[in-house]
Amino acid sequence: MNIACGIEYDGTGFHGFQRQPDNHGPTVQGALEAAIMQVSGERLAVNGAGRTDVGVHAAGQVVHFHTEAHLTPEIWERALNASLPITVAVRWAKAMPERFHARFSAVSRSYRYTIYDHPASSPLLARYSYHRPRPLDVDAMHEACRFLLGRKDFSAFGRSPDETNPRKPGPHSCVRLIHEARCTRQRSDFFAKTTELIVCDFTADAFLTGMVRRMVGTLVLVGQKRLSLDEFAAIVEKAEKTHPGAAAPPHGLCLVRVEYPEEFGVIA
Amino acid sequence: MNIACGIEYDGTGFHGFQRQPDNHGPTVQGALEAAIMQVSGERLAVNGAGRTDVGVHAAGQVVHFHTEAHLTPEIWERALNASLPITVAVRWAKAMPERFHARFSAVSRSYRYTIYDHPASSPLLARYSYHRPRPLDVDAMHEACRFLLGRKDFSAFGRSPDETNPRKPGPHSCVRLIHEARCTRQRSDFFAKTTELIVCDFTADAFLTGMVRRMVGTLVLVGQKRLSLDEFAAIVEKAEKTHPGAAAPPHGLCLVRVEYPEEFGVIA
Repeated sequence: MNIACGIEYDGTGFHGFQRQPDNHGPTVQGALEAAIMQVSGERLAVNGAGRTDVGVHAAGQVVHFHTEAHLTPEIWERALNASLPITVAVRWAKAMPERFHARFSAVSRSYRYTIYDHPASSPLLARYSYHRPRPLDVDAMHEACRFLLGRKDFSAFGRSPDETNPRKPGPHSCVRLIHEARCTRQRSDFFAKTTELIVCDFTADAFLTGMVRRMVGTLVLVGQKRLSLDEFAAIVEKAEKTHPGAAAPPHGLCLVRVEYPEEFGVIA
Repeated sequence: MNIACGIEYDGTGFHGFQRQPDNHGPTVQGALEAAIMQVSGERLAVNGAGRTDVGVHAAGQVVHFHTEAHLTPEIWERALNASLPITVAVRWAKAMPERFHARFSAVSRSYRYTIYDHPASSPLLARYSYHRPRPLDVDAMHEACRFLLGRKDFSAFGRSPDETNPRKPGPHSCVRLIHEARCTRQRSDFFAKTTELIVCDFTADAFLTGMVRRMVGTLVLVGQKRLSLDEFAAIVEKAEKTHPGAAAPPHGLCLVRVEYPEEFGVIA
């Protein structure tokens, strides 16, 4: 049986989604595989749609695994949640056709990056947002976003995940299709705290490694007026691996949603 | 100079606000006093408006301290924030008349308790809300809240903070005045996650030790239909120290606001 699950996690304590060959530290994939072992006794490989980096969060990661166990998706959901640490949870589970693959069947991924621009830092927001003590020009950042839209070579902001894979030598394309890129200031009701946050939303067919964090790091320079719109456009167009913005830190980033062809009935 | 500060903290790693005589673990008061020592070299006592318990958060705690240092409130704010751990921040600082006392001048405190009632737990909400896997009847909880309003003996939900103080023997009143008590279901935009949370808001002249958590624990029984409105009313009225609800866990609780007479110009 091919089981797909929607997964949420707090990435703070994880060395990213993907299991490390050297077992460098706890990973989300490792936590899921350990929970499956507890539930069915199977040593399975879990495939994730987005290979989120060290410290990056997810509200809507999708994974799948092939199991021999005769358990319904509902039982899988409950049993996995009983075994998983509090920092990872299965939000839904669904039986899928054999051909469904969490990564290769996905048609788009959506990430959200959250910035808190305020003179004083906020301990209650610090875990999930990037604090900038001076106000950013969100309108300029939003304007810059339009240079990111479309099918382009995004070498300026990242490298192909396959570039470091010794099993996949040869040329690696950095061409991706961005459907959505916007920065807006939004009122946020965060438990006991009402505040304003800058949210940067990106949707693409797929992202390069580190791409969202480098785009945001460069957009922040635009918001600080240290980079003009023309300079931003030129950086995107040149598609050179040198770019002026440091990558924004991982804790502001969250994998929000993965979309699949309608036939699979995955409701994001 | 008498300096008042608005303080925000993530209570997860703290043994409550108040410094423990046996130095049992890190406290918010201890962190503030250590930061003051770094800034001005003074060994001062910091007074807080609300003595929040182990693991309880604060968005709007207020403290004051008397200093000999010739620093403006703005300098205090910046210097303290540079010394404090990321889990505590000064949100504002203000010079006050000598008679201002963060605790004794306060006219009311407001707390918010957040509940997430959903079958699956949410790792991204887990730090600041109490997860209940079955839906709660919020309307019934809200109805029950009206029995809490007014000046009453709240012995059913806590004890006087002075009861355990050997320097304050004698009878300790458990009479408090609750101005506001309500439970509502609210849409919450929490970084990358949009969801519904139950928020329980309470404002009183002062609260007994553990009072909000015990009130919420008992309101949850009402929301579960394990306690009728009449039974809830009887528990409040009897004012006996035995009560059926376990205290709700501390991580759902946050000190939101402390109010002072207008003359002090504290903007919550």
